[in-house]
Amino acid sequence: MRVADLGRSVDLAEAGREMHALIEELYPLCRSITGAGLRTTLARLAEEVPLARHEVPTGTRVYDWTVPREWNVRDAWVKNARGERVIDFQRSNLHLVQYSVPLHRRMSLAELRPHLYTLPDRPAWIPHRTSYYEESWGFCLEHARLAELSEGEYEVCIDSTLTQGSLSYAECVLPGDTPGDVLLSCHVCHPSLCNDNLSGIALCAQLAKLLGGCARRFTYRVLFVPGTIGALAWLSRNEPDLAAIRHGLVVACVGDPGKPHYKRSRRGADVDRAVELVLRHTGEPYEIRPFSPYGYDERQYCSPGFDLPVGSLTRTPHGEFPEYHTSADDLSLVTPEALGASLGLYLEVLAVLEEDRRYRGTNPKGEPQLGRRGLYGALGGLPRRADAEMAMLWVLNLADGRHSLLDVAERAGLDFRIVREAATLLSDHGLLEEAAVDGPVDSPSRDRS
Amino acid sequence: MRVADLGRSVDLAEAGREMHALIEELYPLCRSITGAGLRTTLARLAEEVPLARHEVPTGTRVYDWTVPREWNVRDAWVKNARGERVIDFQRSNLHLVQYSVPLHRRMSLAELRPHLYTLPDRPAWIPHRTSYYEESWGFCLEHARLAELSEGEYEVCIDSTLTQGSLSYAECVLPGDTPGDVLLSCHVCHPSLCNDNLSGIALCAQLAKLLGGCARRFTYRVLFVPGTIGALAWLSRNEPDLAAIRHGLVVACVGDPGKPHYKRSRRGADVDRAVELVLRHTGEPYEIRPFSPYGYDERQYCSPGFDLPVGSLTRTPHGEFPEYHTSADDLSLVTPEALGASLGLYLEVLAVLEEDRRYRGTNPKGEPQLGRRGLYGALGGLPRRADAEMAMLWVLNLADGRHSLLDVAERAGLDFRIVREAATLLSDHGLLEEAAVDGPVDSPSRDRS
Amino acid sequence: MRVADLGRSVDLAEAGREMHALIEELYPLCRSITGAGLRTTLARLAEEVPLARHEVPTGTRVYDWTVPREWNVRDAWVKNARGERVIDFQRSNLHLVQYSVPLHRRMSLAELRPHLYTLPDRPAWIPHRTSYYEESWGFCLEHARLAELSEGEYEVCIDSTLTQGSLSYAECVLPGDTPGDVLLSCHVCHPSLCNDNLSGIALCAQLAKLLGGCARRFTYRVLFVPGTIGALAWLSRNEPDLAAIRHGLVVACVGDPGKPHYKRSRRGADVDRAVELVLRHTGEPYEIRPFSPYGYDERQYCSPGFDLPVGSLTRTPHGEFPEYHTSADDLSLVTPEALGASLGLYLEVLAVLEEDRRYRGTNPKGEPQLGRRGLYGALGGLPRRADAEMAMLWVLNLADGRHSLLDVAERAGLDFRIVREAATLLSDHGLLEEAAVDGPVDSPSRDRS
Repeated sequence: MRVADLGRSVDLAEAGREMHALIEELYPLCRSITGAGLRTTLARLAEEVPLARHEVPTGTRVYDWTVPREWNVRDAWVKNARGERVIDFQRSNLHLVQYSVPLHRRMSLAELRPHLYTLPDRPAWIPHRTSYYEESWGFCLEHARLAELSEGEYEVCIDSTLTQGSLSYAECVLPGDTPGDVLLSCHVCHPSLCNDNLSGIALCAQLAKLLGGCARRFTYRVLFVPGTIGALAWLSRNEPDLAAIRHGLVVACVGDPGKPHYKRSRRGADVDRAVELVLRHTGEPYEIRPFSPYGYDERQYCSPGFDLPVGSLTRTPHGEFPEYHTSADDLSLVTPEALGASLGLYLEVLAVLEEDRRYRGTNPKGEPQLGRRGLYGALGGLPRRADAEMAMLWVLNLADGRHSLLDVAERAGLDFRIVREAATLLSDHGLLEEAAVDGPVDSPSRDRS
Repeated sequence: MRVADLGRSVDLAEAGREMHALIEELYPLCRSITGAGLRTTLARLAEEVPLARHEVPTGTRVYDWTVPREWNVRDAWVKNARGERVIDFQRSNLHLVQYSVPLHRRMSLAELRPHLYTLPDRPAWIPHRTSYYEESWGFCLEHARLAELSEGEYEVCIDSTLTQGSLSYAECVLPGDTPGDVLLSCHVCHPSLCNDNLSGIALCAQLAKLLGGCARRFTYRVLFVPGTIGALAWLSRNEPDLAAIRHGLVVACVGDPGKPHYKRSRRGADVDRAVELVLRHTGEPYEIRPFSPYGYDERQYCSPGFDLPVGSLTRTPHGEFPEYHTSADDLSLVTPEALGASLGLYLEVLAVLEEDRRYRGTNPKGEPQLGRRGLYGALGGLPRRADAEMAMLWVLNLADGRHSLLDVAERAGLDFRIVREAATLLSDHGLLEEAAVDGPVDSPSRDRS
Repeated sequence: MRVADLGRSVDLAEAGREMHALIEELYPLCRSITGAGLRTTLARLAEEVPLARHEVPTGTRVYDWTVPREWNVRDAWVKNARGERVIDFQRSNLHLVQYSVPLHRRMSLAELRPHLYTLPDRPAWIPHRTSYYEESWGFCLEHARLAELSEGEYEVCIDSTLTQGSLSYAECVLPGDTPGDVLLSCHVCHPSLCNDNLSGIALCAQLAKLLGGCARRFTYRVLFVPGTIGALAWLSRNEPDLAAIRHGLVVACVGDPGKPHYKRSRRGADVDRAVELVLRHTGEPYEIRPFSPYGYDERQYCSPGFDLPVGSLTRTPHGEFPEYHTSADDLSLVTPEALGASLGLYLEVLAVLEEDRRYRGTNPKGEPQLGRRGLYGALGGLPRRADAEMAMLWVLNLADGRHSLLDVAERAGLDFRIVREAATLLSDHGLLEEAAVDGPVDSPSRDRS
């Protein structure tokens, strides 16, 4: 099976259920940019796919950053005067501001209050807050619950550790038949949040599993990295190989029921065109966004010193669904259907990237006689040609060694698959030969006359 | 008289009637891609314009194709049990599928039926069908008539011949004063069909006649060729001269009352811009279409091995009027008015191509003083300048040896004629000199700031 | 104070009143392309700003033009049979067609009439007409007054002189700290017309005064020149220095209450982008126009032999307000508010041009850690970043030595000032260094992916 065949062979509904089940399993873990929850998550993923797990020691410089101390939490709570846990890490790991320093003391509500974070507009939800690089502590809670807290003394306990340890990340490398790498990257640093983090993790694991069973043109590098510092750590350890990256996608927020959104790469790349082509031909609503330097790890991959051809295909983008970074980004926000549909889109995009080729016609002067070869309706005079025949004519017309199949599909306004099938058919009949690719050829992507 | 003067000197109404009369005369002939009807058509055209007629023997290889046997028909019919001709080639040559092999035998309606073609949606019309490259036979008829055929035995007779002969095509070459050719091509292979074939033939003949009486900048090559195989035959016999082709248009469907449509060349060319400019300034509705590899012989001229600067200016495009490839594409579909209007458009386009020039101003620094030369209203202070004065200012402003008059007209939003007249006037006053053209200069067509 | 600080430090209301007062003072003078009124105007401006005044003798060739004789008028009138001045230059200098030759004789109304100019549609207004380069004479008057003139004899007197003299123009040169000139040019040749001429004069004087008190990156050349011939005279005397001009604006019609209009340069330039950016971020209506070779002295600066990067920022363009070139373009048409607002726009544009830079990030691989430097909210997890933080991310992302801050602002959709402030902040923290500019770098202005 080739990568391009996955789209048709995979049962997306079943795969969606599998991904949701994995999300459910990983949901309770208290992930952060370091620590036991992250490590356990990667260990669990290693059961699914061949995973090289890496540890980067605290204090390691990665470009302008330094790997922080490892953070672990045993427990954390705030007790009222009656000794009742009014805020309890055991109920939800979101209650604790990530990277809160250890603490155990009594204080008044007035003293505690500046350390409490709520969402006044969403009084039933717990926000997600972090303080990775500033020594601090705090609790997040439902605004409604805060309102109920009476004055008086509270006992505050954060049983956390900040130690010389390491940052964990993992990579699944699936070697391909020809030079060129495809980067798929998700962040793994968020605690009990489903769409923002677990959906991307599950989709990347699923992709890695499926790609592992295929003949691959490209090498796939599927990254499970803590946001920012993890991506930077991977970049710093893989600098010599970055030039091989032909296409890349940052995977996140792929489980909610919103329409697909694609954020282009900084520099403009074939992956942008491939995603847009696939989305256009779904017939469903979608949205294309220009690159912007805020978001997920495309910020790092597309920083000027790397400027990799990496975009990001999500459903509703970060910050644009109300549940974002709150306890409402839970198991009910992400659905097997949406996960399956996202998987389907990714598979279609990979099919385009894998199958894109440049050809030269063996009979470039005039059209070759398709009818004689049984490739064309024998009876003349009909007013219209079907898509399949138009695809053949387009492929032949642009088979000048300069236009790729992606160019053909864009200019012809046809689905990539039909163009690819036409090329295969014509190739099988000796009417096309693949154009030699000596280094990257600039795609004349905008020459639609 | 120069080519550019034709647009104003020709009586389009009269020319429209002439073209319609020629169509009427040629209408009954059974043209095909070979044979007597085609040959007679070319002979009739040779009475109108100096025509080199060519014969390409059966079996000649032209690129991926082979010239087929010559097809001729004496008669063809289907008789019912009572001996009545229920389908009769003598009534309409569309009744016979083109290139039907000879046949004479009795058969049941059931046996006959797979060989009968009708248009269920248009029960009163006979379709046009061909089988040039597949040995086959068939009849086309009105769907209403098919419904009337009773079961029983029929006598089927196709008195046709398929012999070692030749394919005929013709070319009218009108030499020009300077290097550079303009290609005008129409297909001549359709039987009794008016808009799709005869309108283009009549317009090409009219153009050749008119151009023959002019001083021409370019050499005109007006082709009357059977579709596909004829165009390929001409290409294969003229390969060394193709590099001289600067501009080209495929002429077809120019007689119906629909609005003009222009289909761009594959590569983008000045002819595209000239046609669009002319259409824009008619003030009438029109439509511009991108290139596509389906259509008339632009498919061959724009195949990747040639990629000639050839577009196609039609009225309603092939396949988009209901009468297309049916008996309803008859003498009533094409009108003298529409033919005349089409001629007018072609003459305007040729005027642009012939008159386009690049200039250099002799006073490029600042504006030259037009008033002193009587070229400009002497009285200052008026709020607006007339088009003619704006045209002078634009021509001078862009007279940098890099911009053509076509560029000027596009950027200024002015009719080409007024721009050309301004250039002539300025030239006559020594304010412009023609820029040397050493090989083609790329037109900075998109620099409208 | 730097040029970029002017926008915030200047009291635009006060400056608007100052400009209006200057206009009021200069209003009565009979300016023309030569003569005493022009000279007096320049002398008055020299009281405001350091002004080099130049005289170009009659007969001097400037490119295709020749400096005309100097024109001066002592008086001009038409008296009726009763000796009453029915047209009187003393009441309005618009009554006399500019450059009218001396004359004193009696004539019938019939004889006089061809020399009388009126506006039938605006019977109460006096038109403005000129005849600089054609020996002629005439009077302009209210159409209503013309209707009242009875038949009979009139005494016509034009007490003007046309002598070997000179054309006057003035220039204020304000040297800058680095190579590169900015051209600001207004025409000074119109008599009692406020928006068309005096508003531009007042704004240029104000700009020169303000710029004179600043630290300037660029050298400013503020020109007060008679239209066409004055601009050409300046060009001819400054040819060797024209290559230094980086940016230019023709200043006119900046006092009426209409919305701002910007006319682009011929060649497309950074000044076009700067003005459009500023206008976009005002949140007020505005209009961008393509270059056209009719208008003010941008016609000369943008002629093909110079092709300078000069656009024109006006309020209502010439010829588009009904008062244009009539006595209704008076002190009531221009307002202190509009003049102040125009000044504000010019200052913002100059701020962009002065502050535009290219940077290289000192940590181009990945994002630098802004939080550690206190440049970024310390608490993570928030859904949105403020404009100031987005500006920092954008500047860093495009700090590749290739993109200018103008590019950043355009691509980020942010106000230039916020981008500039972000760059300064990042620079102060050692995260950016200015990219060396060895000659002009082409701006990749259209690469918004």
